[in-house]
Amino acid sequence: MASVEAEMTDNSKASNPYSRLMALQRMGIVHNYEKIREYSVAIVGIGGVGSVAAEMLTRCGIGRLLLYDYDKVELANMNRMFFLPNQVGMTKTDAAVQTLSNINPDVVLESFTLNITTVDGFETFMSSLKNKSFNPNSEGTGVDLVLSCVDNYEARMVVNQACNELNQVWMESGVSENAVSGHIQLLIPGETACFACVPPLVVASGIDERTLKRDGVCAASLPTTMGIVAGLLVQNTLKYLLNFGDVSRYLGYNALKDFFPTMEMKPNTQCSNAACMERQKEYILAKPSRDAAAKAKMDADSLVAEEFPIHSENEWNISVVDDDEPDKVSTITSGSLPVGIMHELPSADKFESDPAPAETSNPIDDLEDLRKQLDALNAD
Amino acid sequence: MASVEAEMTDNSKASNPYSRLMALQRMGIVHNYEKIREYSVAIVGIGGVGSVAAEMLTRCGIGRLLLYDYDKVELANMNRMFFLPNQVGMTKTDAAVQTLSNINPDVVLESFTLNITTVDGFETFMSSLKNKSFNPNSEGTGVDLVLSCVDNYEARMVVNQACNELNQVWMESGVSENAVSGHIQLLIPGETACFACVPPLVVASGIDERTLKRDGVCAASLPTTMGIVAGLLVQNTLKYLLNFGDVSRYLGYNALKDFFPTMEMKPNTQCSNAACMERQKEYILAKPSRDAAAKAKMDADSLVAEEFPIHSENEWNISVVDDDEPDKVSTITSGSLPVGIMHELPSADKFESDPAPAETSNPIDDLEDLRKQLDALNAD
Repeated sequence: MASVEAEMTDNSKASNPYSRLMALQRMGIVHNYEKIREYSVAIVGIGGVGSVAAEMLTRCGIGRLLLYDYDKVELANMNRMFFLPNQVGMTKTDAAVQTLSNINPDVVLESFTLNITTVDGFETFMSSLKNKSFNPNSEGTGVDLVLSCVDNYEARMVVNQACNELNQVWMESGVSENAVSGHIQLLIPGETACFACVPPLVVASGIDERTLKRDGVCAASLPTTMGIVAGLLVQNTLKYLLNFGDVSRYLGYNALKDFFPTMEMKPNTQCSNAACMERQKEYILAKPSRDAAAKAKMDADSLVAEEFPIHSENEWNISVVDDDEPDKVSTITSGSLPVGIMHELPSADKFESDPAPAETSNPIDDLEDLRKQLDALNAD
Repeated sequence: MASVEAEMTDNSKASNPYSRLMALQRMGIVHNYEKIREYSVAIVGIGGVGSVAAEMLTRCGIGRLLLYDYDKVELANMNRMFFLPNQVGMTKTDAAVQTLSNINPDVVLESFTLNITTVDGFETFMSSLKNKSFNPNSEGTGVDLVLSCVDNYEARMVVNQACNELNQVWMESGVSENAVSGHIQLLIPGETACFACVPPLVVASGIDERTLKRDGVCAASLPTTMGIVAGLLVQNTLKYLLNFGDVSRYLGYNALKDFFPTMEMKPNTQCSNAACMERQKEYILAKPSRDAAAKAKMDADSLVAEEFPIHSENEWNISVVDDDEPDKVSTITSGSLPVGIMHELPSADKFESDPAPAETSNPIDDLEDLRKQLDALNAD
C-alpha cells in the first residue's frame, strides 16, 4: 500500500492512474485524496447499480471493497453496464472480482457469495462487517460505509437491521421497476430515519404506476438510469468519506422530467426497530459533546478565514449557488411528502404496517421526554 | 437485423439480452422500443463521457454507432470508466470497437481515427455523417443524432459548424476541469441557440474557479461525474429518439450541491455563424406547417383520449410531478442567466468576442422583420 501512495503523489501524467484524482487535491476540491486508500466500503447487491458503484470506487482507488451477492450473471443483464457476455453463468461476485482486479489491482477485494436474508448469510454478513483486519485502529466496525444496491424490500430491511445493530452509517439506493426513476438515501443510525422509521419512498415517474408489479411482467431496466443512480451514490460516498461538498440525505431522480427532489428525514420516535431506538437515545445523549465539537470547529475555521481571506476578488464574476432549503419530513405520521416523492407501496400493503409499533416491546418509551429535557438543557 | 428484431420480442427472460428493454414497451413507457435498431448515433470524442455513452447505447441495442477520436488510451485514463489497463497504447477508437463489439455484436460500429479540427478530418467527418447506406430512406443526413463528447472549445465549434451546415440535431456535453460540475445541451439548428449563438455556459461549482486552467495543473476527473453526465446525455438521447418523456434543452449538474439547473436558449438573431442564420430563417418560414402539424396531432390525441380514458381511477394516490418552468435566456445580450449557470470563460477572453457579429457578412439582415411578419400572419 505504501508504494501505491508514493505512486499517487507522482505527477508524471500519462503513466499514473491516479494523476487526475490527485488533481482534485491540487485544485482545492478535496483536502486529502490519498486517505481513500484507508477506507473500506461494503456493497450489498452487485446488480445494475452495485456493479457500477464497485467499478467507480475501484477506479477511484478505494482501499478495500466487500462485495455481497448470491446471483449469477445472465444474458438478460447485458442491458445494464459492467457484466460481459462471456461472464454469463459465473456468480456476480466472481465476475466482479475478475473485472475489478484487472482494472485496479491496488484495491483489496473481498467477495461473499451469499444471501444476506438467510440466517447463515446474515451471520457471515455481520461478522464480515465487524472484521477490523484491514484497519485495526478503526473506531467503529471494520468498514467505513455500507452501500445497499439490492432490488427488494426484505434485503433492505436486513441491511437496516445490521447497520442499526452495528451503529454503521449506510446509503440505500433504488431504481423503479419501470426504469425511469430512482433515488439514493443516507442513513445515519439515531440521526436520520432508519429504513423501518418511514415506509419506503420513491420518486414518482408520472407514468401510470399500476403498470408496476403486474403479474408476469418482468421489471424494465436501463443502463442510463442505473448508471446515473450508481454515479450519484458513489459521488455521495466520495463526499462523505473525503469530506467535501454537501452530502445528500435523500436525492431522487425522475428521468422523464429530469427532476431531482431532495429532502431530509428525521428518525421516527416510535420506530418498531429496537436497535434504531437505542441509536436514537445515544444520539440525543451525545448532543452536548456534538455541540462542543461544532463550536470548536467554528472557532478554528474563523481563525483560518482571518489568516487567508478567500474570494477577496471576484474577477470572473462568479456567484456561489444557493443551497435549496430541502423540505423536511419529520415522521411517517406527518403525511406531507415533498413534490415528486411518494410511498413505494399502496397504503393497504402489508409492509406499510411493519414500521408501526406492533407487539414489539418498545425499549425506550421516554425518548420524546429525553429529547425535550436535553433541548431545554441546551437552550441557552 | 431481422433476426435481432425477432429475438427482441421473444420474452424468454434469462437468455434474451433485450428482455428488460422490451419491458419498457410492455409497461407503457416507450411505444416502439424496437425502432432503436433503425437509428444511427455519431459520438465525437471517446473519452470519459463519450466511451460511457457509447457503451450505454450499445447495451440498449442502438442500430449503428459512429465513433470519432484521434487519441490513445493512457494509464491516466483509468480513473474514468470503460477503458482497461491492457488497452493502454491502443487508439481509443480501436479499444472502443474491441469492447463494444464484444458486449453487443448486433450494433454496427464504424470508427474514425481522426481529428475533426483538421481540414482532412473535417471533410471525412462531414462525408461520414452524410453517408445514408445504413438507412437509405432517411430524410435528413445518414445519422439521427450527433453527440459531442469532446473536451475543448475548438472541437465543439467544429461540431457546431458541421451540424449547422447539415441541419443536424446534436447534443453537447461537458465536465468542468475541477470534475465537480457538468452539463448536457440539445441543439436543434434554427430552433435553439447554436454553440456560436451564446458563449459557452457551465454550471458553477461554488469552488474558487480561479483554480481552473492554471498553467501546469492537469485537469481533475472523476468516474462519477463523467458517468452521470454520460447517463444524462444518453437518457436524453433515448427520450429524443424513442419519443418519450421531456427532452431537456439544457441540464446542468453541480456535484457539490446536488443541484441540477435547467434552461432554454433561443437562437441569437445576430449569430456570427452563417449556416445558423440560414437555419433560423428556414425555421421561421416553416412555422405555418409546424402549427398545422401540431394542431393535427392535438386533434388525433384528443380522439384517442376519448376512446381510452387513462388515469380514470387513482387508487395509489399518484400525483404527477409538475414541470418546473425553466428560465429562458433569449440572447447573449440579455445577460440574465439562471441561478447556478455562468459563462465558461471570463469576459475578457478571446473566445467571447467570436460569437459577436464581426467582419463576417450577415446573409440575412431582415430576420427579425421576417419573424415579426410571420407572427402577425399566424396571430389569428
